[in-house]
Amino acid sequence: MTQQQAVARKATHINGLDAQAAFETIAAIKADKSLARFQFRARNRWISGGENRSTIRDFYGAGREDTSRASAFEFTNGEPPVLLGNNEGANPVEFLLHALAGCVTTTFVLHAMARGIEVRALSTELEGEIDMQGLLGLDESVSPGYEQIRIRMHVEADCPGEELDDLLAYTQRHSPVCSTVCRPVPVVIERR
Amino acid sequence: MTQQQAVARKATHINGLDAQAAFETIAAIKADKSLARFQFRARNRWISGGENRSTIRDFYGAGREDTSRASAFEFTNGEPPVLLGNNEGANPVEFLLHALAGCVTTTFVLHAMARGIEVRALSTELEGEIDMQGLLGLDESVSPGYEQIRIRMHVEADCPGEELDDLLAYTQRHSPVCSTVCRPVPVVIERR
Repeated sequence: MTQQQAVARKATHINGLDAQAAFETIAAIKADKSLARFQFRARNRWISGGENRSTIRDFYGAGREDTSRASAFEFTNGEPPVLLGNNEGANPVEFLLHALAGCVTTTFVLHAMARGIEVRALSTELEGEIDMQGLLGLDESVSPGYEQIRIRMHVEADCPGEELDDLLAYTQRHSPVCSTVCRPVPVVIERR
Repeated sequence: MTQQQAVARKATHINGLDAQAAFETIAAIKADKSLARFQFRARNRWISGGENRSTIRDFYGAGREDTSRASAFEFTNGEPPVLLGNNEGANPVEFLLHALAGCVTTTFVLHAMARGIEVRALSTELEGEIDMQGLLGLDESVSPGYEQIRIRMHVEADCPGEELDDLLAYTQRHSPVCSTVCRPVPVVIERR
């Protein structure tokens, strides 16, 4: 990148996001709502015990199949010894926290950009409780999932605290993963 | 491992899980329900744009802080170019599919073990739709999360199809991530 290109790039980038591209995308979706429809996919293969591996590459969005990824992402689920595994990877409920942390962060930074707020630093800490009686089927009145998930967010940005609080409330209502966790989303499982 | 140890190990292992350890765990929980309480955690740091990274290591469970992991797991969220990124990693909604695939798989294999069913092979394919008008705040009537997630499961096991269908229905009701997605789970975000 030449210095001139770098300066031009910086002018349209806020929080590492291309503001011009974002506003063009929004204009395109307003003209044709079908461009907003995405389908995401994963393939997973059981290895042994609590170990299994996912492959993620293709998806559909913005009116076409995406071909931008030269190779697939691979992620391994595992379990710690106390849950009968050998720490082959983080476990599924921990990956859920990673997904939630990432989605809240990206949604916050995106809408900060839309409001012209420059974010200097952002980090989160998440924790959530699970009663394993649910998973084990020992008490059918116990929900097997997270009881609640708490996120502590640390933000440094050039704007008043009230504006950050407003942005945070907006983020919570508009984050895809947060919404998937907070609201009931149907999961249909079919055996083939 | 000696041949004798290997034979002894195999005798108590079904589907790669230590059946004896599992039944001992269940007996311990029945005697003291507080042992079933787990708290999982993640820390995440924003890098730039849609890129951020999680660190996962410690958790609380079975009555104590876990110290089994010699080092932390690290995972990077990213976004594809059509969502303003450079494919720095899979994106958060794709990591959610990985978490769901892994949890359904492990829950299935665990309860197959409890029923004495040996699973030879298990793989899943997941897909879910998201309308990005929700994330972008273009239409407040559009939910930002997944509309529905479909899982196709391929299982090879030594038992009749009806038993696998029953086990699959049981899995769906007892998987922690599936439950977190299917039911509303409160997410509390606090700025510090």
